[in-house]
This record gives sequence, structure tokens and C-alpha cells, in this order.
Amino acid sequence: MFGKFVSKTVKCYYFSGMIKMVILGAGNIAQHLYTVFQSAEKLDVIQVYNRSKSALSYFKDVATITSLKHLAEADIYIIAVTDDAIPSIANKLPFTDRLVVHTSGSVSMHELHKKNRRGVFYPLQTFTKGIQIDFSTIPICLESGEKADFKILQKVADAIGTTSYKISSEQRRALHVSAVFVNNFSNHLYRIAHEICESNNVPFEILSPLIQETAAKINTLTPYMAQTGPAKRGDQKTIDSHLEKLDKDIHKEIYTLLTQSIAKTYGRH
Amino acid sequence: MFGKFVSKTVKCYYFSGMIKMVILGAGNIAQHLYTVFQSAEKLDVIQVYNRSKSALSYFKDVATITSLKHLAEADIYIIAVTDDAIPSIANKLPFTDRLVVHTSGSVSMHELHKKNRRGVFYPLQTFTKGIQIDFSTIPICLESGEKADFKILQKVADAIGTTSYKISSEQRRALHVSAVFVNNFSNHLYRIAHEICESNNVPFEILSPLIQETAAKINTLTPYMAQTGPAKRGDQKTIDSHLEKLDKDIHKEIYTLLTQSIAKTYGRH
Repeated sequence: MFGKFVSKTVKCYYFSGMIKMVILGAGNIAQHLYTVFQSAEKLDVIQVYNRSKSALSYFKDVATITSLKHLAEADIYIIAVTDDAIPSIANKLPFTDRLVVHTSGSVSMHELHKKNRRGVFYPLQTFTKGIQIDFSTIPICLESGEKADFKILQKVADAIGTTSYKISSEQRRALHVSAVFVNNFSNHLYRIAHEICESNNVPFEILSPLIQETAAKINTLTPYMAQTGPAKRGDQKTIDSHLEKLDKDIHKEIYTLLTQSIAKTYGRH
Repeated sequence: MFGKFVSKTVKCYYFSGMIKMVILGAGNIAQHLYTVFQSAEKLDVIQVYNRSKSALSYFKDVATITSLKHLAEADIYIIAVTDDAIPSIANKLPFTDRLVVHTSGSVSMHELHKKNRRGVFYPLQTFTKGIQIDFSTIPICLESGEKADFKILQKVADAIGTTSYKISSEQRRALHVSAVFVNNFSNHLYRIAHEICESNNVPFEILSPLIQETAAKINTLTPYMAQTGPAKRGDQKTIDSHLEKLDKDIHKEIYTLLTQSIAKTYGRH
């Protein structure tokens, strides 16, 4: 029965060339995915579900529903809700043996109820409400319980012009932690620099080219090779002068810890 | 005498439209500055000085000297050597009342000997040997003891197509600390992510679009507004799962400290 369903889905896809999708959720990622899926020739979002009707106002050219009972038959159900809500919505789905995927970086595929075929479609990017994203540059991390389903997910990624990677739940968890370092934490360092600039009446924009170049460098050099600065050189005089210049204790702590970590990386401890 | 000299220099510049420059130093920044100055119509590097002859091999189409005694007369002398060597080379200059500037982010203008007119020409960027830089995107921080000299420095910055800012030594010190946060420390976070990816057999390149987008975002949003992630949300479950996933103690320490700092920024402590 299970095998039959899979081949039927795959066959259907190959004949019509169209993948029927339902999105569950109405937030930031749901909106971004909806927009890019609808603009892809081979994808068709036939329904968007959300418990609250008001949140569905973004979705104008598609059927919207507020009860799981009204879910239509589709090739893929994409759960794009907050991490905590994923298991419960997957539990409540009123069908079995269909392909159900979530879009989270930190939730294991196995938190989806096993009554359905399971998968993950995780776009590794930071999404800002209202800012359109060029999906062709976003890597998608794919995972599935069934081989045939992996091919369907790959076709979805291809249809929106993105590069996809086969990533297990454990690897995805590692990527998600890494993403916190390069996105959340880097942005916080920008914030600290912004504070230092403001308290010295220096326009923060002066730092923008440096920020862009620092990010761009990793496309040609490993971060290990790209490292520069007083911590790497072991230039204690500059380090001391910097610490003296910092007003806030938390900034001094962060400066000290990251300096130690760089020194360690380059064998200075 | 001093006033006379200034007006003579400025006059000379306005008539010929050409600024005569000497570069002292032969390293990374000296090479980048030489290349961009020589390609500018209104600038003329007439000499490059370095104590050791072998280091001068990069400078092919210009007179090179290894003794300060042979320094020619010029409108500006640019000291582009390591921070520690700046005062001693400035002391040894065999002339007075000429415009002498250094290119360092962390050295005060007053570390240049006061027998000459002093200034700073600090390009705020990370320079990599062999990688050509588009100078038109690099902000230059200018400082001078004399007003007339500031105009000369501005003309140099204009001649190479860059935006310049009037930045005092104290402000430059603040910028230099900020640059360590956004460049050295961000790059180290990339390095940590690289390590995590490697130990989980995930290609680090997957993170590149996220890294580029994180940097690009600050051109449209303040870092404060751009912040996302579990630390900002106060999502302790995800934070715990991340800490559990990290192998190295130093990574856990950095994760914890930056998470605390973000939580504090958003009033979660």
C-alpha cells in the first residue's frame, strides 16, 4: 500500500509535470515559500492552512482554510510553523501515507508523526518580513524517509532554481548551530560595533565595506586563512589599548574571550 | 615660516593639479596604496623607501631607496609600516615642516614627530596580499594638524575615488576596536562554523549565502533591528540543544556569552 502510493505520486508528477502542494502556516517562511512556489512553473500551491483566519490575509490567489478537516489531496504538505508547533500539527493531520515535510533547521524529521511519509525542506537563509529573497541563491537542505520522496523534494528545489543538499537530521542540527554563529552572533558583533561607533560619534556606515568584504572573503579563502588582527599576531599592546577603549563590561568580556579563542587557534596559548 | 610652507604646497597643488607622494614601507598596505595612487591621474608616487632592498622588488616603475637620506621633496610622505615602527621612522626623517601621515587605525597622530606637519590617512578595509581592492568602495579616515593639510588629504582620497571622513585619533581608535569586532571576530565565528561543519561532514559552502545576506542586511536595517535567533526569542529549548551539540568547551563558552549578551540587549535578563 505504502509502496503503491509512492509510485503513484511519482508517476503523477512525471506525467503532469506539476507538483501539488499545501502549505500549513502563514508566517514569515510560509509567505516566502508561497511566493516562490507560486512563481515556479512546475509547482502549484493549492491550499494554505492556518488556524487563525486573520493571518491568512497575505495569501490572496489561493484557497485558504482554517480547519485541518478541509485539507485537499496534494503531493506534498509543507509545515512552516514555529518549531514547537510542528509535532502537534503533524499529529493532527487527518490522513496517512502522504508526504509531510517541515522547514525547520533544528527539529528532527522524526518529530513528524510516522503515520505519514516524512521529510524536511529546510532553506538555509535568514528571512525578513517584506524583503523579497532571491531563492536561486539559497541552499536547501533535504531529508526524507523514502528514497522516492527525496526525488520529489529535489524536484521542488530544482523548480525554484536552488541548489539542494542531502542533509541528515544530525547534520542539520550542526548546520543550525553553525548558522547561529555566522548569522545571529555575527549580527550581534555588528550591533556592538554600532554601539561603540554611536558613543564615539562615528557613523556606523563607515564599517559597511569592511563587513561586506569580511563576508565575501570566505568565498575565496577559508576562514582560517582569512584571519587577521591583533589576536592572531599576538599584539598585546593593541589588545590592551582596545580593552581600555571599551566602556561596557560585557564588550570587554566578549573581546577577551574571542581574542583567547583566536590566539588558541593560531597556537599562541 | 610654517604658514608659508603650507600655502606654498597648497598653491603648488592647485596649479599643477598633481600631488607628489613618497611611500615609506613596502608591505601589504604600501603595495595596495602604491598601485591605486599610481593609477590615479592627479597623484604621482615619486619614491618608495624601505630599509631592506629585497622587499622593494614589488615596486617596478618607481625610484626605490633604502636610505632616508635620499628622500626627495614631496607634498606628502606616507608612512605605511607596522604600528610599532611608525614613531621611530617619523623621528628619523631628515627634514621638517613637511606633511607626514601614517595609515594606521590604532596609532595616534601625535606619535608622529612634531617637527613635521602631521596627519593620518587610514583606509578602513582588510587587505589581502595579491587580491586587488576596489578602492572606490573603501572609506578613508582623515586627520591632520593643519586645516590646509586636511584639504590635501581630501584631494588624495578624491583622486582615488573614495569617500573620506574627518575622524579624530580617539574616534579612529573606537573605529579600530569596532573593526576588530566586525572583521576579526566575525571571521573567527565563521571559522568556528567551519569546524562544526567539518566534524559533521557538512560542506561549509552551504553557509555562504547566509553569511553574505547577514552582512548585506546592515545596509538596510540597523543590526539591532536585524537580530533574529533563539537568544533574541528567549528560546531556551533550542539554546540547550545547540549547547549539547557543541563538542569544544571554548565553543560552548562563546555560545553562552554571546547568547547572554543578545538576551541582555533585548531585555531578557
